Amino acid sequence: MPSLPEPIQQLTAALSSLPGIGPRSAERLALHIVQSDAASVHALATALTNARERVHACSVCGALTETDPCGFCTDPRRDSHLLCLVEKPTDILSVEKSGSFRGRFHVLGGRISPLNGVDPEDLRIAELEKRLETEPIQEVILALGTDVEGDATSHYLAKRLSSRGIKVTRLARGLPAGSGLDFADEMTLARALEGRSVL
Amino acid sequence: MPSLPEPIQQLTAALSSLPGIGPRSAERLALHIVQSDAASVHALATALTNARERVHACSVCGALTETDPCGFCTDPRRDSHLLCLVEKPTDILSVEKSGSFRGRFHVLGGRISPLNGVDPEDLRIAELEKRLETEPIQEVILALGTDVEGDATSHYLAKRLSSRGIKVTRLARGLPAGSGLDFADEMTLARALEGRSVL
Repeated sequence: MPSLPEPIQQLTAALSSLPGIGPRSAERLALHIVQSDAASVHALATALTNARERVHACSVCGALTETDPCGFCTDPRRDSHLLCLVEKPTDILSVEKSGSFRGRFHVLGGRISPLNGVDPEDLRIAELEKRLETEPIQEVILALGTDVEGDATSHYLAKRLSSRGIKVTRLARGLPAGSGLDFADEMTLARALEGRSVL
Repeated sequence: MPSLPEPIQQLTAALSSLPGIGPRSAERLALHIVQSDAASVHALATALTNARERVHACSVCGALTETDPCGFCTDPRRDSHLLCLVEKPTDILSVEKSGSFRGRFHVLGGRISPLNGVDPEDLRIAELEKRLETEPIQEVILALGTDVEGDATSHYLAKRLSSRGIKVTRLARGLPAGSGLDFADEMTLARALEGRSVL
């Protein structure tokens, strides 16, 4: 039984390697692509290579950027005394979208996870310590995830940075916005109670 | 607030134009792509342009192919007396996967839909009639969808081809495989009763 033409199969395989795209959607996309106009396919291919070639990690903070150092590191309107530590470059986006932070960033590049072979020296901690020595940073906000590994990494960092005379804080844990008590799991509720504030 | 680097935004826009990929998945994919290794991104871009440039519609039957005429039209082991008429090139794949058809194909390129401005002359019916004159076709199997437009197109074609002394058949309508009566809608059940066969 003759199958799909070879170039379609190759495209399907390449598309399947993207996150969230299974073999069936990859085939559907590939079939759409060979039937759509050549100009838009060419534009997509160019956008792919362009993005990959022109976007890099900032050598200072690790954010995704076209320039080096990036706009976050060079913007004089951002508060250089405040540093927000995140796990991945894309976490910067989430913090930015909140509109509540106007300091600088540092991408850790993962979190400590002995089971997955990620030790502290695999993360960008040495780079962070170098920045603490050269930049006027007064507070490091640990904006890591709130699961076990995120918590362990936060504790490790808080301890390691404690001798430097800077403030180390972490994001509040509590009820998410727009949610009710009936949607909160016990751990979230326990932490929300623990971190309650006076009105 | 600085947003994502321009090349990532362009890639996100290009990806959003694909079917089934919304703005959020497009951004997620774009961010994945700029962080994955250059070789695989290059391979994906090449696969895209390759597929679009090397795959065309067969000039005889309309199937997607790298050669012209396609493998279906030139394979001597396929029965040239049987022609299966489908709506889209990708429908050929579905018929092939069933493993129950060893004849040739013809892609109609749509179905008659006056409301959407699709008239019989917009479809590849003239090409079909030319094939009926030059090829030894004895039976045309109408393998169109079973909705209103598919049915109307089937009836139109049956009438138009009736004077040519060839057999015109259409796919059976009835219960899908592996399904029970409780999952069948009334129309399906009515057609399954109508088309019942002696055991």
